[in-house]
Amino acid sequence: MDDLVKAVLAFRDERDWKQFHHPKDLAISITLEAAELLEHFQWKHPGEVEAFLAKEENRRRLEKEMADILILLVSMADAVGVDLLQAARVKLRENAAKYPVDRAKGSARKYDELVS
Amino acid sequence: MDDLVKAVLAFRDERDWKQFHHPKDLAISITLEAAELLEHFQWKHPGEVEAFLAKEENRRRLEKEMADILILLVSMADAVGVDLLQAARVKLRENAAKYPVDRAKGSARKYDELVS
Amino acid sequence: MDDLVKAVLAFRDERDWKQFHHPKDLAISITLEAAELLEHFQWKHPGEVEAFLAKEENRRRLEKEMADILILLVSMADAVGVDLLQAARVKLRENAAKYPVDRAKGSARKYDELVS
Amino acid sequence: MDDLVKAVLAFRDERDWKQFHHPKDLAISITLEAAELLEHFQWKHPGEVEAFLAKEENRRRLEKEMADILILLVSMADAVGVDLLQAARVKLRENAAKYPVDRAKGSARKYDELVS
Repeated sequence: MDDLVKAVLAFRDERDWKQFHHPKDLAISITLEAAELLEHFQWKHPGEVEAFLAKEENRRRLEKEMADILILLVSMADAVGVDLLQAARVKLRENAAKYPVDRAKGSARKYDELVS
Repeated sequence: MDDLVKAVLAFRDERDWKQFHHPKDLAISITLEAAELLEHFQWKHPGEVEAFLAKEENRRRLEKEMADILILLVSMADAVGVDLLQAARVKLRENAAKYPVDRAKGSARKYDELVS
Repeated sequence: MDDLVKAVLAFRDERDWKQFHHPKDLAISITLEAAELLEHFQWKHPGEVEAFLAKEENRRRLEKEMADILILLVSMADAVGVDLLQAARVKLRENAAKYPVDRAKGSARKYDELVS
Repeated sequence: MDDLVKAVLAFRDERDWKQFHHPKDLAISITLEAAELLEHFQWKHPGEVEAFLAKEENRRRLEKEMADILILLVSMADAVGVDLLQAARVKLRENAAKYPVDRAKGSARKYDELVS
């Protein structure tokens, strides 16, 4: 991950693109790339998703969209001054508190709708 | 990153949530979390964004949304069978080819609109 | 629709909000409201969607999100100088040409993947 | 608007597409079309947005994306059993109560942050 962060920032700085990396515009771009990822699943029912994923070339397409999102997240973390990995670790601990294993196991309910 | 991947998958499996992690639903959730990140910038002009980012508590909020996206990306990479870091490295090389330094430097144009 | 357009613009102007209705910000808001609409379906499989829609109060929730999108579309049409209804009529004719009945009937394929 | 609703539903039924119009998939498509609308503004600062909008062909592009959203909203209203125009009228009244003219005038604050 450290190497990726370095590579992403080097890519940006070689092109003098930091000037364009306003956090609002990065947030827009992350949303747009997420929509491109979602677009691959548009109108597809579960059987069609399975058939789609069975093809190597389609997994390569998804991979590219997911890579775009990660690259933009790394750029935004730098622009905003956030440690992305550390933030994910902390958030995962918070999620663990919101969704205790004994109550959340096998349930897709939101934390405020969990039954005890 | 390896540790994060392990922690994310352990979190999921302790709760028996793999059954809910259909790639289409993960793609929906990534889009929704991206929208929550973007929502912090809604209606804000540049000066207001700056004032917003100057507050530690707001950076903590953004950090949580970014963490949610990363956690979902890691979950999706597992569900689809993709190596996220490797995909980002490959995509960065492709972007470098699409945006050569000498033509892309200081320009926000799309690769197919770059002037030589 | 004419009455709605008048009401939306009167609402905006009474509050002196035209100054905030930059097309980029309106496009962000439309995306965010669309995500709020989608959020009601997050993680739900078809049976759960049906149960959700069977409740009057849930249809009222969806209705509100859809209303928000329409109100923003009307605001954006005014900001950009577009006749929304006329645009929809024209687009529907274009879609009819892209998806001829004899080839598109009963198929969810995209127009460039239709079989003749 | 009545004519548009009739035309949208006739378009759908001639192609036997009602079977694909699951509310969840329609909500996904509305989000994706909203993202396509937003994409036209990606990385553009205010001056660039103005130059973009000054060109007739660009307004035609925005118009098409906005038309797509309206057509999908009409389809969803039918699928869910909602009167879209009536919902917008009701929502506008609710917004008027949340944003009283004397407190909201000239302010971009959210209703729960309005100062009295």
